[in-house]
Amino acid sequence: MPRTPLRAVTPPDSANKALRALWGLAWLLLYRPSPTPLHAWRRFLLRLFGARVGAGAHPYPRARIWAPWKLSMAAHSCLADDVDCYCVAQVTLGEHVTVSQYSYLCTASHDYRDPAMPLVAAPIVIEREAWVAADAFVGPGVRIGAGAVIGARSVVLQDVDAWTVVAGSPPRHLGERPPFDR
Amino acid sequence: MPRTPLRAVTPPDSANKALRALWGLAWLLLYRPSPTPLHAWRRFLLRLFGARVGAGAHPYPRARIWAPWKLSMAAHSCLADDVDCYCVAQVTLGEHVTVSQYSYLCTASHDYRDPAMPLVAAPIVIEREAWVAADAFVGPGVRIGAGAVIGARSVVLQDVDAWTVVAGSPPRHLGERPPFDR
Amino acid sequence: MPRTPLRAVTPPDSANKALRALWGLAWLLLYRPSPTPLHAWRRFLLRLFGARVGAGAHPYPRARIWAPWKLSMAAHSCLADDVDCYCVAQVTLGEHVTVSQYSYLCTASHDYRDPAMPLVAAPIVIEREAWVAADAFVGPGVRIGAGAVIGARSVVLQDVDAWTVVAGSPPRHLGERPPFDR
Repeated sequence: MPRTPLRAVTPPDSANKALRALWGLAWLLLYRPSPTPLHAWRRFLLRLFGARVGAGAHPYPRARIWAPWKLSMAAHSCLADDVDCYCVAQVTLGEHVTVSQYSYLCTASHDYRDPAMPLVAAPIVIEREAWVAADAFVGPGVRIGAGAVIGARSVVLQDVDAWTVVAGSPPRHLGERPPFDR
Repeated sequence: MPRTPLRAVTPPDSANKALRALWGLAWLLLYRPSPTPLHAWRRFLLRLFGARVGAGAHPYPRARIWAPWKLSMAAHSCLADDVDCYCVAQVTLGEHVTVSQYSYLCTASHDYRDPAMPLVAAPIVIEREAWVAADAFVGPGVRIGAGAVIGARSVVLQDVDAWTVVAGSPPRHLGERPPFDR
Repeated sequence: MPRTPLRAVTPPDSANKALRALWGLAWLLLYRPSPTPLHAWRRFLLRLFGARVGAGAHPYPRARIWAPWKLSMAAHSCLADDVDCYCVAQVTLGEHVTVSQYSYLCTASHDYRDPAMPLVAAPIVIEREAWVAADAFVGPGVRIGAGAVIGARSVVLQDVDAWTVVAGSPPRHLGERPPFDR
């Protein structure tokens, strides 16, 4: 399956750079050192910087988030410790989505057909109940369908069908997962 | 080849949680900052927390160990710097086993057929003289046979035959290694 | 394509060990804490320790460099944050080469046919305009041709042809890149 095409990123203006610097400081001093159970405190900080964060979401303290104003975490979604959420373009997690430790959600790349290697980006969408297992890589423009399971260390550069189980680099189809509603 | 089936993990009781917290503190203050050559000191700390550690084993200071009481390192085995030894189930290293830098020994997963995603786990066994090269991933229930070589960055989700050389994600058979005794 | 054969590494003498220790200290106290824009300062430090560093090269502050005296960065090349440049043998980056975040340039291995597992190594050469994308692994003896693109998280253990695009573990040929001169 294909993925959303990448587009040139507008270079940040000075307001944007100042906001990034402020968030970097807030992450270091207020977000990162907070005790693990204080998810409510981190939800508050993320919302303060423009993230949409649903009730009961779990943003872990060692998760790195590039720009909260480009992050949307639905209710009961989870960004585990040591996840790198590089949200140059929007990252959207549906309800009950789990992104496990060390995973890398990478919305940006470079257009290597141009010698100036301009930054390009596309949003990542992970639909409800999907699970991105430990240390997986999700590339720009990828949509992971509801309930899909991405095996540990997989490298996902194309869209993934709902309620399928995939793993590897590139990922292979391993099976189906029984769909459910809550 | 298959692997050991995963089983539900009993949720930790309060004694277990307290022990985990105590070990976390000991790791941070006593294990992690110790100078690299002081393997004897780190062997002592690991044994204090219930690990079985043979003579001349090399637990490096930046190796993360989830629960020493679930770790067995035979004589002259090695857990290199930046290894993540996530021993929710038992991790057993045979004599002269080397686990190189950045590797991830991951004994736990989630049962995604159950919407509650309960934690499941199975032991990892790495037999004598095997070498897990840099930044490899070894999943729950995997047994790596004696003398096997797991190439750098491989993702191992199935058992590996003794004295074979494999690499990739999923790993492919690359050749044999001449068996030896010491 | 093959790669340069690996050779036994001469064990370091005491002068070499002292230099390694001194660089470790300089990295920790002077290189690592320097603000990101101060590339000129880090170029100065690397040259002081024997690296060949061209004008406008970008050695980022969180890049780890094993031994600067084994590193050559041509003009406008880049070692991004969290790159591990393990230059036991020589690492050579051509002009305008970019090595993106989390990548691992690993020049050393062990000869596993010998039970003593002696250290072996071979140089890595990355020719002008090549791009090693995020979190790729480049093994010992590998030459990456001019303008080649190594996709994110690829594991490269063989030489890569100039102006090709590859990705995966092992990498597959995905296409060509239009060659250019500056």
